[in-house]
Amino acid sequence: GSHWRTDVQGRVRSGHSSTQSSHRLLAYSDALISIIATVMILPVAHTKIQDNESLQQHLTTKIAVYLMTFLIVTVAWAAHIRLFQVIERIDDCLALLNLACMMLITFLPYTFSLMAAFPENILGILLFCSCVVVIGLIQALIVLYGFSRPHLLNDQIQGSQNQTFYKHHILKVILRVPAFCFFAGVFAFIYPPLSYVLLAVVIFFPYISQFLQWCYSKAFGQSEETSDPMLFYSYHPNEPLSKERVEAFSDGVYAIVATLLILDICEDNVPDPMEVQQRFNSSLVDALQEFGPEYLAYFGSFATVGLLWFVHHSLFLHVTKSTRLMGLLNTFSLAFVGGLPLAYQLTHEFPRHSHNELEAIQISCVIIFFAGLFQLAIWVAALFNQRETLHPYVHYGGQDHTFMLAKLAVYPCVALGTFFVTCVLSRFSAPVFHLAQIGVPLAFLLLRLLVRAALAVLRWFFRPSHPAAPFSDVLT
Amino acid sequence: GSHWRTDVQGRVRSGHSSTQSSHRLLAYSDALISIIATVMILPVAHTKIQDNESLQQHLTTKIAVYLMTFLIVTVAWAAHIRLFQVIERIDDCLALLNLACMMLITFLPYTFSLMAAFPENILGILLFCSCVVVIGLIQALIVLYGFSRPHLLNDQIQGSQNQTFYKHHILKVILRVPAFCFFAGVFAFIYPPLSYVLLAVVIFFPYISQFLQWCYSKAFGQSEETSDPMLFYSYHPNEPLSKERVEAFSDGVYAIVATLLILDICEDNVPDPMEVQQRFNSSLVDALQEFGPEYLAYFGSFATVGLLWFVHHSLFLHVTKSTRLMGLLNTFSLAFVGGLPLAYQLTHEFPRHSHNELEAIQISCVIIFFAGLFQLAIWVAALFNQRETLHPYVHYGGQDHTFMLAKLAVYPCVALGTFFVTCVLSRFSAPVFHLAQIGVPLAFLLLRLLVRAALAVLRWFFRPSHPAAPFSDVLT
Repeated sequence: GSHWRTDVQGRVRSGHSSTQSSHRLLAYSDALISIIATVMILPVAHTKIQDNESLQQHLTTKIAVYLMTFLIVTVAWAAHIRLFQVIERIDDCLALLNLACMMLITFLPYTFSLMAAFPENILGILLFCSCVVVIGLIQALIVLYGFSRPHLLNDQIQGSQNQTFYKHHILKVILRVPAFCFFAGVFAFIYPPLSYVLLAVVIFFPYISQFLQWCYSKAFGQSEETSDPMLFYSYHPNEPLSKERVEAFSDGVYAIVATLLILDICEDNVPDPMEVQQRFNSSLVDALQEFGPEYLAYFGSFATVGLLWFVHHSLFLHVTKSTRLMGLLNTFSLAFVGGLPLAYQLTHEFPRHSHNELEAIQISCVIIFFAGLFQLAIWVAALFNQRETLHPYVHYGGQDHTFMLAKLAVYPCVALGTFFVTCVLSRFSAPVFHLAQIGVPLAFLLLRLLVRAALAVLRWFFRPSHPAAPFSDVLT
Repeated sequence: GSHWRTDVQGRVRSGHSSTQSSHRLLAYSDALISIIATVMILPVAHTKIQDNESLQQHLTTKIAVYLMTFLIVTVAWAAHIRLFQVIERIDDCLALLNLACMMLITFLPYTFSLMAAFPENILGILLFCSCVVVIGLIQALIVLYGFSRPHLLNDQIQGSQNQTFYKHHILKVILRVPAFCFFAGVFAFIYPPLSYVLLAVVIFFPYISQFLQWCYSKAFGQSEETSDPMLFYSYHPNEPLSKERVEAFSDGVYAIVATLLILDICEDNVPDPMEVQQRFNSSLVDALQEFGPEYLAYFGSFATVGLLWFVHHSLFLHVTKSTRLMGLLNTFSLAFVGGLPLAYQLTHEFPRHSHNELEAIQISCVIIFFAGLFQLAIWVAALFNQRETLHPYVHYGGQDHTFMLAKLAVYPCVALGTFFVTCVLSRFSAPVFHLAQIGVPLAFLLLRLLVRAALAVLRWFFRPSHPAAPFSDVLT
């Protein structure tokens, strides 16, 4: 008897022995969510297309599914960030509830596939809505559990006098999306198109509401800060996202995209021993030469994804806070990055000089262009608010400002250039594209030299007329 | 002219503006390497087997390839950890060199597939060896670059008087494996089996050498610490691994394994609209019922992987330092975890009550058993050296010791139990297995209660004879 009591007391006295830092749980969740967001590109990339068929027709639906999945999964991810900004420490029970939540999130892409394959059947949308409702209920349970053990909560809420108010506010925010989805599910029985509209609203709601608020504040000169003073620790959807989790999520997407093609290569491009014997006189080298374009596509895709990661990494080294707009632009950039395996799959699938080959290469250029352009847009968005979002040394005119701009400009410029060259010299589209792929890593290695040379030339050029050139304030 | 000079001076004066923390680069590398290590289970899992064929014959080679890839990739990963324990800060050039290194590491699984498909052809082994040699050369380049810019190095080396000695020592360690592989490549021309033996030596060399050293120190009573005093910051292969990177790598493996099955489901289990119309009278629900076992397999596999992650997470919360032996046991555990998608793929592939179904379920039990057992072994290995490796409150007899042990014991016990029950009640193997899957998450939720109840029963049972029960010192 006495042992039991001391055991319990020891446990209670030591504070909360079962309380844990949530860091690794969040990293694992980020990894899971980023994989799931990117995965729906596989059914698109694996679509078999005959050379005499048109590319666009076959791919449009599947690409739409991919983009919808990507966006809705990032919405779930943003909700997850917000939830664990309130609950900063976890225990075993919360870890298990979070895993249950993750399991349902990873099931969402499948419900989207069903919706796309059977748009007139309501089963897909019902499955989706019930998943979202259950996820919402689990998250509400997590919040209730957290408030019943206040040592798990954010310090600010823990110290507040009015925890019940916070609890109700947070529950309201969390249950808003599931409530939307519940109604979407009900409307599916009555008039299915309406429920699709409701789902689209769910995805873009936070951004629309922020945009409207921004317009409102610009029109009436009201500061955005003057929200309810109770909500100083504001659990409202316009909070900036945690920079660490944006990085972890992006890393996951870049990593899975970089490796998607080697998955295919390991499975499909090991020749059959029988075939090697019969068709190639047992010469393995001859047999592998058939797969040459696949290897080139792999190395090209890995290099492109790796370098886009590198640019993203350089950019976020300079970022101190990620605003909502930057998060949205990052999501768009990542959605295009996720399209790269598709692009590279396409580039090696068609016979040389066919119309489809040219089209595939141009699609690749467009995807790379937008992936790079949205990265550049993150930078521009950060510059608009540079005191809050950037380290001082990269402020406009700062020491590394030009160099960062050059890094961000490489991919959009190269992609645009390659696109126009392939339009003009359509016969040489494949060699031009491969040349660009090999040239870009070299450009990055020599970028510092190239930028300095370009600046020197610019200065020499503008010296007589502009004594105070835009980069003269590099000393500050 | 003057702008140029001030620009350069500003850059130099501010220390090293291009120097960056290596944290995110390492996290990204961990994600890439863990995906690549796990990926070779896909060709195994996707092997199509007829019901009248034997499972083992078809899978043995492919499983061997998977295990070899997993082990060799973890060797490359351990070398990567060691390298970036020397080079603690990076700049753009190092980031790009590291990406080139990663590209070659992700190509290794393909060379293994070639070796397995054409064991008598030396092309596979030559490709593998040249990849390893090039990786080694890039890593040597990274070391040389680091030593040419000492501010990038580990503080201890930076402060040392004898950097050249360190440089040569580290280069020697780094180039050892590539040298081995170079000779393996040369021997492949003369006598191929010898080169396979050399490769096996490469994988197990660090462990063999540590084991021999341990035997030596036990036999002659010499302390292991008395290595060269120059190497106080010892870049020798027996250094413990960085705990953060072991966690990041494990997270990557668990995340990709948990999501591998949903990839397959999204691609293969969306029924064809035509087929639904013809075979199922346009009833999507009927069509999806065909895939019932797949969904069950998905949720079962996700729950198992998620809970094994949960156990791993709980275990590493208590660990302060990961020794080499713990790292090896963790690798073995992860290799079995990587086998789970195969196991679950198998469980739903065969008709009910067939011999293959029973065998598949038993293979699943064995895989889960070993994955859990090696986790338990990490814990036992940590206990042997508990002052260095564990937080004080989980030392033997400590406050959370029993609870941790119970967490680690759940999966081995359940797997073993299920295995024996399926042996006896082979007709009910599938229901028993699914029941176990549903029961385990509940067991984890209620584990604290169960452990307390069990302890209370044990104490009541042993009270008269053992006044000082093994758990009486929970107060300390």
